[in-house]
Amino acid sequence: MRAAFYEGNRQVSIGLCAPVAPGPGEVQLRVSHCGICGTDLHIYHGSMDHRVKMPQVIGHETSGTIESVGDGIDGWKSGARVTVMPLDPCHNCPACRRGHSHICQKLKFIGIDTPGGMQALWTVPAHTLLHVPQSLSLEHAALIEPVAVACHDVRLGEVMPDEFAVVLGGGPIGALVALVAQHAGARVVAVEINQFRIELLRGLGLEVVNPLETDLPKLVNEMTGDSGADVVFEVSGAALSALAMTDLLRTRGRVVMVAVYPKPVPINLHRFFWRELRMAGARVYEREDFAKAIELLAARVMPFEKIITDVFPLDGLKHGFDLLEGGGSAMKILLDCQS
Amino acid sequence: MRAAFYEGNRQVSIGLCAPVAPGPGEVQLRVSHCGICGTDLHIYHGSMDHRVKMPQVIGHETSGTIESVGDGIDGWKSGARVTVMPLDPCHNCPACRRGHSHICQKLKFIGIDTPGGMQALWTVPAHTLLHVPQSLSLEHAALIEPVAVACHDVRLGEVMPDEFAVVLGGGPIGALVALVAQHAGARVVAVEINQFRIELLRGLGLEVVNPLETDLPKLVNEMTGDSGADVVFEVSGAALSALAMTDLLRTRGRVVMVAVYPKPVPINLHRFFWRELRMAGARVYEREDFAKAIELLAARVMPFEKIITDVFPLDGLKHGFDLLEGGGSAMKILLDCQS
Repeated sequence: MRAAFYEGNRQVSIGLCAPVAPGPGEVQLRVSHCGICGTDLHIYHGSMDHRVKMPQVIGHETSGTIESVGDGIDGWKSGARVTVMPLDPCHNCPACRRGHSHICQKLKFIGIDTPGGMQALWTVPAHTLLHVPQSLSLEHAALIEPVAVACHDVRLGEVMPDEFAVVLGGGPIGALVALVAQHAGARVVAVEINQFRIELLRGLGLEVVNPLETDLPKLVNEMTGDSGADVVFEVSGAALSALAMTDLLRTRGRVVMVAVYPKPVPINLHRFFWRELRMAGARVYEREDFAKAIELLAARVMPFEKIITDVFPLDGLKHGFDLLEGGGSAMKILLDCQS
Repeated sequence: MRAAFYEGNRQVSIGLCAPVAPGPGEVQLRVSHCGICGTDLHIYHGSMDHRVKMPQVIGHETSGTIESVGDGIDGWKSGARVTVMPLDPCHNCPACRRGHSHICQKLKFIGIDTPGGMQALWTVPAHTLLHVPQSLSLEHAALIEPVAVACHDVRLGEVMPDEFAVVLGGGPIGALVALVAQHAGARVVAVEINQFRIELLRGLGLEVVNPLETDLPKLVNEMTGDSGADVVFEVSGAALSALAMTDLLRTRGRVVMVAVYPKPVPINLHRFFWRELRMAGARVYEREDFAKAIELLAARVMPFEKIITDVFPLDGLKHGFDLLEGGGSAMKILLDCQS
């Protein structure tokens, strides 16, 4: 069977490999689709070489059907349509014992720390599986993982109906956060500078502002009657956004820190003090977020699937990375892992 | 009568002035004691000249008795022992309408934006008053305001019994936060580098660590079984503390940002993301915090009064500022406003 391997040094290859038979507690999947995540791009750029054993199959935004099951598997049968929550926690560290196993202190993230889903047949622990309902295509089911990220972010942001939310950064996760927050009843302003993404976000029905053209704090103040936004999702990863985000919020307004900042950046702590702002970091998802993402996608409550700009065969991975690096004409790219 | 005036340019003077008769809704107090706050030192240094009309009587950590009452005052009589919550909100801005009048967007802070308590007779709005019980001396009642700050910080930190709390910075507010958190049932480690303050904190019964001598993150990790602290109070205002605070916390641990940072400083947002940390800014207090502070002081549950290192007559203000600037041998200094 075929698989896409990261080989280090900005090299990926499509090669043949032998399927791994499912061991006890494991399930072998026939992978349908696998999305290319920003994290995969970080891997490609070498930023995660300390975690990835090369050559390694990557990918963690997956959908598929069960091909075969290992010993001791209860409740899962071949043919079942599934998605994978790619977290393998230790269940023994202080974080796990506290109920935070999704951010286990020894977490194995499947597709980074262990082989991922960009292959025709993929063996994973059965505890990672969730059912995909018939009303959701396996192509769209590859969006469950990133939509679960957005559900987690919006849940930790405690978004309430009629609140005013600002989403800084309109890439795939920013777009999904904006849609999920809007579905939760918030008025949402998405903030993005890339023209292609601005158009795409507007096509999703979102209100979009380019902060290079508009004074964003002034606009938010005007739109909220001199109050400020209830919640800001920082998804851009841009230091200027991190510095400016505090100017957008009302007293006791909330920041949800979704973006990954490799280095410390200046933050306006005085504004945290002055307006008693709150901030919560948000990483991956918990099982309830995955369940919620499946529910939202299956019910078609929002046009999530419109973020899919391309579906390539497995050997389109390199081309996908090129498009995402360009930034100008791609949002979410899926790989069809059977072609 | 006598009053202490800030005159700009690091000048204070003790002068005579006419008492202000209480207008409708106002009460005139015979001030007993007034503490010198770090904010008064900032005023003295000229950092708040944009808010202070010179010459101005400063001071906001007060106790006293009612001397006379203006028209329309119900429930307050001359002779009553009182303290002043020195906040005068507009009751009309978005923050006030949301119930956050303590951080009103047009807040007048009495003693900064309007005349303060370092005078023999002081006229204030009656809505600022709270009763001081007989079991609490008027000298110790001057600690109600800073203890209310600590009560607010610990309340916003949602400290639970048996939690592990770290207080960064052992000045008067840090010391009081540590005591209130300990009374709330937390195990508390206070962190300070000044030897005089370290000794004073130990005299309060607190566990104290000097981070210049001890690897603080390593120690906290060891003390918490590789988990990290539940909550960190950042009270130091030191950029190095702000950068290091995130390394001390468990998954979903909380920072309470008490210190005033005039400029943005680098923060480890990756750690916020990685451990899903939370941060809450905390400013002044609400009425329930004042009530709680009175309750704690009156019940003598903690040796709060041991932070009082000096009680000077009104004309000791300049000497008090000198001692606080030196940092080496003073903690909380009170002025006796009748001498």
